[in-house]
Amino acid sequence: MNIIKKYNERPIVIGIDVGTAITGWGVVEIDTIQKSKYKVHGYGVIRTEAKFPMHIRLEQIHDELSALIKEFKPTHMAIEDLFFFKNQKTVIKVGQARGVIMLTGTQAGLELFDYTPLQVKQAVSGYGRADKKQVQKMVQMILNLKELPKPDDAADALAVAICHLNTVRV
Amino acid sequence: MNIIKKYNERPIVIGIDVGTAITGWGVVEIDTIQKSKYKVHGYGVIRTEAKFPMHIRLEQIHDELSALIKEFKPTHMAIEDLFFFKNQKTVIKVGQARGVIMLTGTQAGLELFDYTPLQVKQAVSGYGRADKKQVQKMVQMILNLKELPKPDDAADALAVAICHLNTVRV
Repeated sequence: MNIIKKYNERPIVIGIDVGTAITGWGVVEIDTIQKSKYKVHGYGVIRTEAKFPMHIRLEQIHDELSALIKEFKPTHMAIEDLFFFKNQKTVIKVGQARGVIMLTGTQAGLELFDYTPLQVKQAVSGYGRADKKQVQKMVQMILNLKELPKPDDAADALAVAICHLNTVRV
Repeated sequence: MNIIKKYNERPIVIGIDVGTAITGWGVVEIDTIQKSKYKVHGYGVIRTEAKFPMHIRLEQIHDELSALIKEFKPTHMAIEDLFFFKNQKTVIKVGQARGVIMLTGTQAGLELFDYTPLQVKQAVSGYGRADKKQVQKMVQMILNLKELPKPDDAADALAVAICHLNTVRV
């Protein structure tokens, strides 16, 4: 019964662009009337302040993300893989935030998926070298948004969501 | 009232040695009768299996650590800082586990502290270059344990707890 429900259900995905200071998020689903189009439920960023200790910032990310999941009721979570940082301290911090985000999604019963930065850029630009501004413009066009999605962390999160919806559709 | 209670309270610390496959833990407090000695409440490891997806393993670490906190009721959590990994993939994974552990402690109301690997080794050996076997032996001696604490991940966690108790005592 549960399985049948799952297959009939159209996925609503929350795409995440992980960061400690700014985590982008965007909730998108396929528009079932026009199957080639997307319906955007919302997007934005979770900001945490550097003046607070890291464990407080992680708890804030968890709490705000939990609230977003309650509000938008996504069924899938899509996160970008982390690669190529300049220094290990950054990798550890972003890794910590990523762990908290994965746990938050799992505890809320979402299915988790991850994509490489290359897969995400290819999904919105057809090639892997788009810069941040190009990603914003492509995301705006693909999702038919009136305004340029800002900040770029939110646009990146929407790009991850688009990447996931293109993948599950195939 | 709360503040007074906090200051009078003797800290019970859970030391953590973070890992994705094996996370060591050890719960220790100062023995109030003989103030130079320690009382060990328990130690061990949380093991997760590589065959499961990472988000399931992170949830398992969260759930088992939550259960340990409920059982042993520590007031402080001490974690080792992460440094110097061979590859970034490992750093990200361990970072993810560390984020989940920090969140678990914070949600349970514990005070969080972190120490560098050098601080931890100095706390148990007086110098920074002790190997794993030496740390196990020193931890056994300091805590007056009948057996060598095993595996070394549990001994490392006990060493972090000792490091913290020495620091708060000063």
